[in-house]
Amino acid sequence: MASVFVGTSVDGFIARGNHDLDFLPEGGGEEHGYEAFMATVDALVIGRNTFDKVLTFDAWPYGPKPVFVLTTRPGPRPVPAGATVEFLAGEPSEIVARLGERGFRHLYIDGGKTIQRFLRAGLIQRLIVTHVPVLIGEGISLFGSLAEDIRLQHVRTRSFASGLVQSEYLIGPAGRDSPAP
Amino acid sequence: MASVFVGTSVDGFIARGNHDLDFLPEGGGEEHGYEAFMATVDALVIGRNTFDKVLTFDAWPYGPKPVFVLTTRPGPRPVPAGATVEFLAGEPSEIVARLGERGFRHLYIDGGKTIQRFLRAGLIQRLIVTHVPVLIGEGISLFGSLAEDIRLQHVRTRSFASGLVQSEYLIGPAGRDSPAP
Repeated sequence: MASVFVGTSVDGFIARGNHDLDFLPEGGGEEHGYEAFMATVDALVIGRNTFDKVLTFDAWPYGPKPVFVLTTRPGPRPVPAGATVEFLAGEPSEIVARLGERGFRHLYIDGGKTIQRFLRAGLIQRLIVTHVPVLIGEGISLFGSLAEDIRLQHVRTRSFASGLVQSEYLIGPAGRDSPAP
Repeated sequence: MASVFVGTSVDGFIARGNHDLDFLPEGGGEEHGYEAFMATVDALVIGRNTFDKVLTFDAWPYGPKPVFVLTTRPGPRPVPAGATVEFLAGEPSEIVARLGERGFRHLYIDGGKTIQRFLRAGLIQRLIVTHVPVLIGEGISLFGSLAEDIRLQHVRTRSFASGLVQSEYLIGPAGRDSPAP
């Protein structure tokens, strides 16, 4: 099982074009289920851009949780103390298969390009999107082009005092179907 | 006061690139407040693309409610029987001023380009967006570029049995502010 848990502006951006996150509430904002979600995650799969961004944070946000960074650039890299990081290359289906063989059952897929690649490949089963009450006009989109429509099953939506609105959707095997001709 | 009441895919599209609406539930889907909203509306302001699309529907959806169609192409046009339609050209601020002088207090702004123009001009005070549980990958976006961030005040979010999720936001005069330097 692979999940996305992500915050976006109401117009669907996860970051500004320069990767800034200044439109998000400080410190991640009001608690909106991140800790509870993380407790169910076996490993993260993130893109290199997200990894590079996270390295600029004051603290490594993933604790000792295994983090797999997708990159085609080989070679050793600095990794923060206490972090468990491994670099991988490959198609989303290979990544999921390899991590599954290693016993990682619940993957948290993060980062714009990575989320889009895994969605396109039909490898995301759960989408938890938190809308931050702002329009920013342009930036890095959460969603991208698809080969076909992906139908979602709405599980629940919660809103929070600070204005965050969080919707959870499931994507079943039947979620990938072509639009009616 | 000007409001937007619109349905989008979860990835933010109000129509496919060819203006098709086949991903929306038939007949507008489960009742989700459209009638109650329309009862508060004095007049609609829509773009020419939206007008042309609406003309292809089986029935004119706006009843006798005055509909102002923004277009720069002059000349008479066919208008459905029973419809109250007027063609206008001008900047959003002029349109709002002219309609205000004529006593239209609550405007319903509809159509992709028109919504974006009025938002950019700071002339939308209320945004009611209903997310339909599907990702379509590409199409005509609800939102577009902005000169500056627009902060939203979350009013309420409702979800419906069919999976529709509707969020209502207010945009105050203070809603238009620059991002922190």
